[in-house]
Amino acid sequence: MRIDGNTELIAHIGWPTYSFKAPLIYNPYFEQAGINAMVTPMGCKREHFAEFLRNVFNLENVRGALITMPHKVSVLSLLDVVSPAVRVAGACNAVKRGADGKLYGDMFDGEGFVRGVQRKGFEVSGKRALVVGAGGVGSAIAASLAGAGVSELALFDLNAASCDALASRISANYPDVKISKGSNDPSGFDLVVNATPLGMKEGDQLSIDVSRLDANTFVGEVVMTTEVTAFLAAAKARGCRTQIGTDMLYEQIPAYLEYFNLPSTTAEHLREVSLA
Amino acid sequence: MRIDGNTELIAHIGWPTYSFKAPLIYNPYFEQAGINAMVTPMGCKREHFAEFLRNVFNLENVRGALITMPHKVSVLSLLDVVSPAVRVAGACNAVKRGADGKLYGDMFDGEGFVRGVQRKGFEVSGKRALVVGAGGVGSAIAASLAGAGVSELALFDLNAASCDALASRISANYPDVKISKGSNDPSGFDLVVNATPLGMKEGDQLSIDVSRLDANTFVGEVVMTTEVTAFLAAAKARGCRTQIGTDMLYEQIPAYLEYFNLPSTTAEHLREVSLA
Repeated sequence: MRIDGNTELIAHIGWPTYSFKAPLIYNPYFEQAGINAMVTPMGCKREHFAEFLRNVFNLENVRGALITMPHKVSVLSLLDVVSPAVRVAGACNAVKRGADGKLYGDMFDGEGFVRGVQRKGFEVSGKRALVVGAGGVGSAIAASLAGAGVSELALFDLNAASCDALASRISANYPDVKISKGSNDPSGFDLVVNATPLGMKEGDQLSIDVSRLDANTFVGEVVMTTEVTAFLAAAKARGCRTQIGTDMLYEQIPAYLEYFNLPSTTAEHLREVSLA
Repeated sequence: MRIDGNTELIAHIGWPTYSFKAPLIYNPYFEQAGINAMVTPMGCKREHFAEFLRNVFNLENVRGALITMPHKVSVLSLLDVVSPAVRVAGACNAVKRGADGKLYGDMFDGEGFVRGVQRKGFEVSGKRALVVGAGGVGSAIAASLAGAGVSELALFDLNAASCDALASRISANYPDVKISKGSNDPSGFDLVVNATPLGMKEGDQLSIDVSRLDANTFVGEVVMTTEVTAFLAAAKARGCRTQIGTDMLYEQIPAYLEYFNLPSTTAEHLREVSLA
């Protein structure tokens, strides 16, 4: 990787930085593709973030910023324009400066999920989807499914208040989507997503009743620590098509590349060159 | 070069960035030596510099900053503690944060020059030196020669006021060194330095009367665009030992590495792995 005076930076801002994955995915791709850009880890504590963000966008060779913990929520108040996905998720992980000088924010976790299933041949538009888990990632996926035109979006979380709040945010930002109350019963849905952390640990009780999964349901997972979780294994055993958690990760990178107006590529290629 | 969440940054701050050489010298060395650090170009215009400098030192993984045009002079007012070399040169190109939270500034252009001649076997201490050119680089070299214990430092510049000002700054910071008025006549000096830009262009009139160079005088050059300038060629023809301009560049890097508390190496090794 040749870094020189023409290198553009994508500031990767968070703290702690030690487990940052983005530099290990983007930079090998940039090098391999001859793109003179670099995702640069910048360890920024909470108390310095607001001022740092403003200042880093005063640099001439900063093309954008990837925002991660603990700033994904607090960054919202520092932006001029945010996307519906950001408003629904209540979190933002990509910031760029517009030609108008304003700071724009977006987030593509949900977009990565949707791109992944679509590229696996599952057309989201017009389908009935169940999202279990109304936290950050569930909210993001629900927003992107709404944006992609599902005919019905069923939401379920053991925390009913959090589930209702997500339903309200979706309604406010995607007024045309039909929202319903889901349960742990996946039967009758075209697409079912586990957006809970259940499945990260061996022996976790599953958030979804796999015994009621239809064989023609497409099943997606967000847990990344295990490739084929118990939930996905059960779904596969019932004949379902599936998407693993890290697909969401790699599928969202092309969306960020496009957002930063950099030459994009496929998730497969990114996975292939990645050091992560 | 593997950039990950443990990578430490040396912020290379200036504008424009296009001709930055430091990333091309330091980074290949870091990669080759397995040092997880990176000189990162940060294009910062004059109006944003003061605030940016303060903010970049609020990051957790910034080990220091290299400061270049147009901020080498203005940075002085932003620092808490500066070295005698900085005070004499009136310029600073390395900043780090102390354990006390204060910002410290130093500059090693002159140190690079002195290290180079010393490593070529010329002991500076106790010698009579003539520095021609009282600009930024001449001031830096004069300061380092004073710090290295020359017995006499003769200064000459066609701009007498600038020469007198340099003499005053040296006296103030190195009260023990004997300063004298030099001329373009190098005879009788142990060390003679061209610290003017004369020699960058073919046919430049030389700043020093080479016909009066003694064969046992050590002759140094700061012009970097040509390796063996007309001045050095004439000095060599008279039997003088010489130092080329880029030696000053490569010899100063170990000083910066030490300043930033990074594993250091030789100028030769840096030149060998450099992409500059």
